[in-house]
Amino acid sequence: MQFDEPKVTQFFLKIEPLSAEAFTAFGEVIDARASEPILINQGYAQRLALPAHIDVAQQSGEVTLALFKAQPRPNPIVIELMERHPLGSQLFYPLQDRPWLIVVCDDPKDPQTYRAFLALGCQGVNYARNVWHHPLLVLDPNSEFMIIDRKGEGVNLEEVILSQPLYVQLS
Amino acid sequence: MQFDEPKVTQFFLKIEPLSAEAFTAFGEVIDARASEPILINQGYAQRLALPAHIDVAQQSGEVTLALFKAQPRPNPIVIELMERHPLGSQLFYPLQDRPWLIVVCDDPKDPQTYRAFLALGCQGVNYARNVWHHPLLVLDPNSEFMIIDRKGEGVNLEEVILSQPLYVQLS
Repeated sequence: MQFDEPKVTQFFLKIEPLSAEAFTAFGEVIDARASEPILINQGYAQRLALPAHIDVAQQSGEVTLALFKAQPRPNPIVIELMERHPLGSQLFYPLQDRPWLIVVCDDPKDPQTYRAFLALGCQGVNYARNVWHHPLLVLDPNSEFMIIDRKGEGVNLEEVILSQPLYVQLS
Repeated sequence: MQFDEPKVTQFFLKIEPLSAEAFTAFGEVIDARASEPILINQGYAQRLALPAHIDVAQQSGEVTLALFKAQPRPNPIVIELMERHPLGSQLFYPLQDRPWLIVVCDDPKDPQTYRAFLALGCQGVNYARNVWHHPLLVLDPNSEFMIIDRKGEGVNLEEVILSQPLYVQLS
């Protein structure tokens, strides 16, 4: 007599290091280290460009600024909601030098299209318009981020709740 | 026989605390504490609005982002150069919770129009277009700031070198 093995239904995402190349399809990596410092202010400051395409002009949008203060989630992290912004890019830049986590996908209903990235504390990201991403995921209490995105008329948020959650396991 | 007393030619600026009211003529104070936190991300984050008028659209400008790493100047601080940006606002937001210093004026050639402000580490500023200000002044080594201003065609920098410097004395 033969038994089928029970199917493993929990889908764990592999965590990759964040790099501009790996993130190309989802937006920009905002990395101060990638920029050549320019001496300014009579030598009293360095300027590091953070190249980003702040893409908020759809339907007369304006740039808005916000501070997010985020808390870590229980481990393993349950991924059960994805969102995207059809009218503007959304930029996250950490205010402290601590790693944080990014989850994006091409199709929220297809687990095979998900990617999880570990960002360094010197790395922010700018999600391109329409890129599916998970809300902010941090590893340390009271992690603060600057957010630059779009304000204006029009519906700039789509959310999908997953019928089957995915997981990210932190070591 | 009578001598004239030598004239005191050194002009020291009084340091005022930074507040939105005091700064109205020069731009906006970006103060996370002034904002009512909104709970987002299923309760795992607070959103604090940082209301700012990012005014960069003159002559088809775009928003740019940079990181400045600044060093303190010798005390008393010599104020001998002022600048302004005719085509865009310029926003400075500190990445660390440490006080810093702002010097602005209505007319760079009139010492009476100068104001010096002590900003808290939770306070950024957004200089309005055409507002005369001193380059970034910090009190601690390696102070980092996010800068949001304009990139694009056109001359967006005017500088004035003072014939007679002013001073800010730190206690």
